[in-house]
Amino acid sequence: MPLDLRFDATDVGLFADLYEFTVSAAFFEQRMNDTAAFELSLRRMPPNRGYMVACGIERILETLEEFRIDETAIAHLESLKLFKPEFLEFLGGLRFTGSVRALREGGIFFAGQPILEVCAPLIEAQLVETLILNQVGFATMVATKAARCFSAAQGRRLVDFGPRRAQGADAPLITARASYLAGFHGTANVAGGRRYGIPVYGTMSHSFVMAHERELKAFDDFAGSFPRLSTLLVDTYDSVAGVHNAAKIGVKLREMGGKLGGIRLDSGRLFDLATQARKILDLAGLDDVPIFASGNLDEYRIAELLGDGAPIDAFGVGTSLAVSDDAPAGDFNYKLVEYRGEPRMKLSAGKASTPGRKQIFRARNAAGSDYSDLVGLIDESTATVTREFRQPPATVAAIVETQMEGGRRKLPRPGLEELRAQTLAEFPHLDARLKALRKPAEYPVRPTATLNAMIISERLKSERRQD
Amino acid sequence: MPLDLRFDATDVGLFADLYEFTVSAAFFEQRMNDTAAFELSLRRMPPNRGYMVACGIERILETLEEFRIDETAIAHLESLKLFKPEFLEFLGGLRFTGSVRALREGGIFFAGQPILEVCAPLIEAQLVETLILNQVGFATMVATKAARCFSAAQGRRLVDFGPRRAQGADAPLITARASYLAGFHGTANVAGGRRYGIPVYGTMSHSFVMAHERELKAFDDFAGSFPRLSTLLVDTYDSVAGVHNAAKIGVKLREMGGKLGGIRLDSGRLFDLATQARKILDLAGLDDVPIFASGNLDEYRIAELLGDGAPIDAFGVGTSLAVSDDAPAGDFNYKLVEYRGEPRMKLSAGKASTPGRKQIFRARNAAGSDYSDLVGLIDESTATVTREFRQPPATVAAIVETQMEGGRRKLPRPGLEELRAQTLAEFPHLDARLKALRKPAEYPVRPTATLNAMIISERLKSERRQD
Repeated sequence: MPLDLRFDATDVGLFADLYEFTVSAAFFEQRMNDTAAFELSLRRMPPNRGYMVACGIERILETLEEFRIDETAIAHLESLKLFKPEFLEFLGGLRFTGSVRALREGGIFFAGQPILEVCAPLIEAQLVETLILNQVGFATMVATKAARCFSAAQGRRLVDFGPRRAQGADAPLITARASYLAGFHGTANVAGGRRYGIPVYGTMSHSFVMAHERELKAFDDFAGSFPRLSTLLVDTYDSVAGVHNAAKIGVKLREMGGKLGGIRLDSGRLFDLATQARKILDLAGLDDVPIFASGNLDEYRIAELLGDGAPIDAFGVGTSLAVSDDAPAGDFNYKLVEYRGEPRMKLSAGKASTPGRKQIFRARNAAGSDYSDLVGLIDESTATVTREFRQPPATVAAIVETQMEGGRRKLPRPGLEELRAQTLAEFPHLDARLKALRKPAEYPVRPTATLNAMIISERLKSERRQD
Repeated sequence: MPLDLRFDATDVGLFADLYEFTVSAAFFEQRMNDTAAFELSLRRMPPNRGYMVACGIERILETLEEFRIDETAIAHLESLKLFKPEFLEFLGGLRFTGSVRALREGGIFFAGQPILEVCAPLIEAQLVETLILNQVGFATMVATKAARCFSAAQGRRLVDFGPRRAQGADAPLITARASYLAGFHGTANVAGGRRYGIPVYGTMSHSFVMAHERELKAFDDFAGSFPRLSTLLVDTYDSVAGVHNAAKIGVKLREMGGKLGGIRLDSGRLFDLATQARKILDLAGLDDVPIFASGNLDEYRIAELLGDGAPIDAFGVGTSLAVSDDAPAGDFNYKLVEYRGEPRMKLSAGKASTPGRKQIFRARNAAGSDYSDLVGLIDESTATVTREFRQPPATVAAIVETQMEGGRRKLPRPGLEELRAQTLAEFPHLDARLKALRKPAEYPVRPTATLNAMIISERLKSERRQD
């Protein structure tokens, strides 16, 4: 019997709400399986978010390439006694044969924009709904949270300390990757480091100090075992006394030609403790030994500490990153926008969708800053759309790209380092007002005239679908 | 190459923060691997929580029974160039040989209590820290959220609609199980239903209605395919018009000897719409057709709707359940409490731990209500402790049980139905003031005199560990 914690191919094939299967069965019976386009978008910006960082798209592409509902999964579906044999046989042979258009992994976006579009036979596009919402939704929330920490940290090192507080076994892998993509320097997560080739960082546990009779002996033992990786955790008992003990080890290591890796503060008043620790270390001639802080940190707290001038060189961010604690879920939705070449629209109160296959046109001014987006239809050209910006742009880019065609990746699979570099290169183009941690400015996003006309005509058409 | 979404045995073996491996390596070098006891507890109650429902313990037991660090994992650790060959060899042969004492899965607990204790050779107990915090932490937050929805719903059906908004691929499995344990009737999650044998529920997607030219035709098609499972989603365009269309199908099904499964409202003013829908259905003679509501629901909203008398028969709870949105992470910690038979204590500012291996003694009055807990040491007896309750108890139970010994389960593996029944049977013993959704009462938890004396003496001893 497999370990309960493992998530296998059968789980992947059944990673769907039951209705994905029941409506697919009804489509199958009605022979409704023509080409459909579904669009993933964010209905509204989460609290205090001025921009979003798209993430999870690469994982979706990888999963779609291998998508299948294996025999065990089919046997389970059969056991539900809901589905006819012909439909189950059809599901067993199903592969993803469609196309995916999407933002670049790490790309910036805003509410109301098409961030990923699946265009495929209706049933294929339907069955992957839960998967896409789950994976892109969470990864994007974490990448966005990480980007906020990155701007608050002003170049200080950031390490993902989240695995212990994350929601389940998969979330830490996503967090390790998404936070690295958005500027973190590495992760404490060994499994995540392995899977994505991310640098791993670790310091020391309280238990290590507690299992020893004396703190100084614990520090000495640890420095002996890891002369190049000895960041000593000083807050198990009294933090200031702990820094003095760490300084003794630092001096000893230096005399032996080595170097103390750092000290870590994990509780108490971090500003006061970091200030005292810096003095203690400097007086011992250890002015090159960095101070690492952790313990309930987030972008707000990091900004506050650095704003006050706390001499902290690196931050471990755990809970707040791992669960995106002030916005644990985004209002993402995946809606049918076209079927058989005809636009489709949902009118639900407060949750209306916009019809048609779309493109995002992003305007940049002469100084290189993004300042406005138009959302248009897929067949609109950059040239035509350029005229619609209120302030004439220096450049306009269509940023939704075809990433998969016929179920295969169209573009070479980018490496994480490359994606990270592109993501970090994009941040400076964002207006500082969008990056404000609280009450950021709202980025202007409007529909093009063509899309607007379609919204109006489709609204009328949709209202008549209930007659 | 395996699908990125899968979580395999190597991931399980490396599911740890780097420091778990580095401190273990240092312990190994110092030959410090005597018996240690680590305790999992919740430092403080999350906002608005008057009680917690323990969950994730069964999964930990299952994972510990199979715990190993496989060859691929060892090869990866070797590649980090941090560890000596002898240590890696030791890790490759490591199995979990210790004992686990814990609350029953689904048991009620409060802040400051030992909910799970691992007693094992130091390195084994250390290496499973991240795993235990991650798994029990999240499952407990979700089970607790689900229990709150259960009490708000006053017997109405509750279905987990969370997979699309959950944090990664593992969280939905945990949510399906944890919410069922705490009173939900089932889940939309097909993979979760399969793994844990939980009833699955599904209605209909907006895309199903949108892909049709007419809503009525969509309803008719769906009812044709699923005459026994036809809960029709009425809010794609106008909800009231949608209910009228659903009623037409209901009448048609009845004439054919069938029955409409229900209607689902997913947006708009749910109270008004449910009231109108009830009238429309009743006028059509469909008074036995239930109304299902969904869309940003949580325990607060459910209580409000039912308090106002909304005629809603079932609720789909998604985001708020899946991420426990008002408390996405709990302040759980896993601390060394004893090494080589000697108590250990951490003094960190605001994060002190309590020393010693412990037991929870729960007092119940003659009416059968739980009213106070004492946390004592493992060797204290129920008889001795009984005298310490301020109000004499009718019964006192020691609720932390030995669940695993020598790395094997000691008790037979309980079925989920059995655990669910026990959990639901426990709710009535909780004071209504603890179940208040906002500002609940605080349940009295105190240390026994013996534990208190140990805390005082260990504090002094710990303060001297920095001399």
